[in-house]
Amino acid sequence: MSEFWWERADLRYESGRLVFAGCDAAALAEEADGPLYLYSAARIQANLDRVAAALDTTGCAHRIYYAMKANRNPALLAMLAMTGRCGIDICSPRELDHALAQGFGADQISFTGTGVSRRDLAHLLAHDGLTINCDSIGMIRRIGEQTPGRAIGIRVNPARGVGYGDSERLTYAGARTTKFGIYREQWGEALAVARQYRLRVTSLHFHVGCGYLNDQLESWEAALAAGLSFLDDLPDVRVVNIGGGLGLPHRATDRPLDLALWAGLLRRHFAGRTLEIAVEPGDYIVKDAGMLILGVTNVETKRDTLFVSVDGGFNLHPEPVFYDLPCEPVACAPRGADRATWRDCTIAGNINEALDLWAEDVTMPPLEEGDFIAFLNAGGYGAAMSSDHCMRGAFQEILLD
Amino acid sequence: MSEFWWERADLRYESGRLVFAGCDAAALAEEADGPLYLYSAARIQANLDRVAAALDTTGCAHRIYYAMKANRNPALLAMLAMTGRCGIDICSPRELDHALAQGFGADQISFTGTGVSRRDLAHLLAHDGLTINCDSIGMIRRIGEQTPGRAIGIRVNPARGVGYGDSERLTYAGARTTKFGIYREQWGEALAVARQYRLRVTSLHFHVGCGYLNDQLESWEAALAAGLSFLDDLPDVRVVNIGGGLGLPHRATDRPLDLALWAGLLRRHFAGRTLEIAVEPGDYIVKDAGMLILGVTNVETKRDTLFVSVDGGFNLHPEPVFYDLPCEPVACAPRGADRATWRDCTIAGNINEALDLWAEDVTMPPLEEGDFIAFLNAGGYGAAMSSDHCMRGAFQEILLD
Repeated sequence: MSEFWWERADLRYESGRLVFAGCDAAALAEEADGPLYLYSAARIQANLDRVAAALDTTGCAHRIYYAMKANRNPALLAMLAMTGRCGIDICSPRELDHALAQGFGADQISFTGTGVSRRDLAHLLAHDGLTINCDSIGMIRRIGEQTPGRAIGIRVNPARGVGYGDSERLTYAGARTTKFGIYREQWGEALAVARQYRLRVTSLHFHVGCGYLNDQLESWEAALAAGLSFLDDLPDVRVVNIGGGLGLPHRATDRPLDLALWAGLLRRHFAGRTLEIAVEPGDYIVKDAGMLILGVTNVETKRDTLFVSVDGGFNLHPEPVFYDLPCEPVACAPRGADRATWRDCTIAGNINEALDLWAEDVTMPPLEEGDFIAFLNAGGYGAAMSSDHCMRGAFQEILLD
Repeated sequence: MSEFWWERADLRYESGRLVFAGCDAAALAEEADGPLYLYSAARIQANLDRVAAALDTTGCAHRIYYAMKANRNPALLAMLAMTGRCGIDICSPRELDHALAQGFGADQISFTGTGVSRRDLAHLLAHDGLTINCDSIGMIRRIGEQTPGRAIGIRVNPARGVGYGDSERLTYAGARTTKFGIYREQWGEALAVARQYRLRVTSLHFHVGCGYLNDQLESWEAALAAGLSFLDDLPDVRVVNIGGGLGLPHRATDRPLDLALWAGLLRRHFAGRTLEIAVEPGDYIVKDAGMLILGVTNVETKRDTLFVSVDGGFNLHPEPVFYDLPCEPVACAPRGADRATWRDCTIAGNINEALDLWAEDVTMPPLEEGDFIAFLNAGGYGAAMSSDHCMRGAFQEILLD
């Protein structure tokens, strides 16, 4: 048993210092002299392998498209392209250029975007092998006009009361009508437009949740079944892309997603069909393979609260503040192991906004100016969503290999 | 009477086209061929003049420090520096460099940051004339160690149950202990540390709200009085900086802040004191002087909802999604004036997140692909907080002069 819920073979205390992917976290932060993202290539590959192994048990052909939007660090993408273990999921023309530049071929790239403009499409359609999933009838029509007869994917929204998001902000399908995909109500019209331009629908796509864990698998399965029902009208489909959304633990009370259970549901629903299963995990691949290390700049009681200030704010990683997804704070080199010396504190960033708090009422070891705190599970939607708010947006990234 | 609540002399429909600062909004957007921020130099100056005129009525010396964090567009800052109408409020070392580069002298710059590091301070203290407001006792001590005898400001947090934010996320003071400033409970220690290093406290700072309008002036006044009570211990103070936070209307039901009332409260509380009043407005100066124009890429009913898709998402301007501060959507060239043709719709951005909606259930004229929508009140905390999420972060900015 580990002493901390987040400890694992490649992320744990050794002789009182946090070691990640074989490296001393504090030592790297000391060199960086400012906010530092660390990513572990080995952990990323292990996460990919775990998903692939689960998919193997389905008995179906399968393909993983890593969702670039989670983390587009060039070294990380080039490493993924080199391994050949996955393709890549993109959602904008510049993501296409970036994927190509990092070594992915057009036939390894799947585009699933929303609000796609005619200008976006002109950029995408220049690449024949690219899989393009259409999010609207308008998009089907514009592709038909520009490249009649092309192979396309269609993104459907299977939901009526199904779908799951790990916060209200992250609900992609369900009772509320979202902007994503084509609903059953407009399905006939979508097929008619595809036929009008002789478009071959070779791929079916749906994305029905975000951050799902075991407790959500039941509703996820209902959405899966609803999504697959669209196949009845799509004789040319060879690939079903079930989107991303595989969750991972953020808190001590979260249990990891049981991939065997997940794959078992896929096996049951894909049995008897000759289809390739495509999956688009983003966070699941990179989130727990990354941390953000910030330096402590001040430790001081204000009124009744002990504030630990660090040299980076929510603009470097918006998830804790805006998505209620915590990044577990861990002291890189805690002073002494005596838990009696640990105290409740609030860890605050250096942005002039009241909301800029990394964690409230967390129990931390004694901290001083110059110490480092690693914020775990920062590998996804951190650097990729960062801004230069207050001109405090500078950071370094290292891919540990 | 204007037909729309947001219309004013420099922002209104003329012959069915939206005209802003004398320019045809759609024509500029057409040329830009992508997301476009427009700012009006004249409106910015008018906003500044309005605050200055109100401050004139207090009978006190006064100075406005424009809060750079709201909008750091270089042309905009250079224009402000040229006018000589205001100084500038900054909160990070890179903002200092940027202010200097755009033409502000160190003596026109006021620094009020949080979580300030020793490295930050080394950068700031190289500039003698710079006003530095200390947000913590640790900051006072570090300045004392690096430049004993220097003049400093102290930011206090006057609140116990006072303070106002226009959303829960924007509460800077009040019942909850925030990371900002020095509380009464630690005041004696703060003064002792300042004395220890012979620091002269020449400036008192407090910021007690954000986006306050008339209804909040009563609680704002209570906070003002509580803040001024710290002066009893500060014989050397010559400037009281009351922070920013002046609000402006976001919705048809909002009434503009009554600056005469606001200034009247200042006059009453500063009567008999020989002090300069400093103010740090950000949004109040630039917000209603800016708009973001996006192009319509698709108009389509999904299930039961009419979605208008545009070629930019919340990453270009996070306030509507994350701060619940709407940017009023206005068609740049509505087809026909017949209100019977207007329909309820949801305006959706092009980012792959369900939350990426500009407005829900708004009534808009008939819209088609290629039309433009101006999102009003986008001049503050828009471009400045933008990110390249999904690699959809590109935009242009034009300062209309």
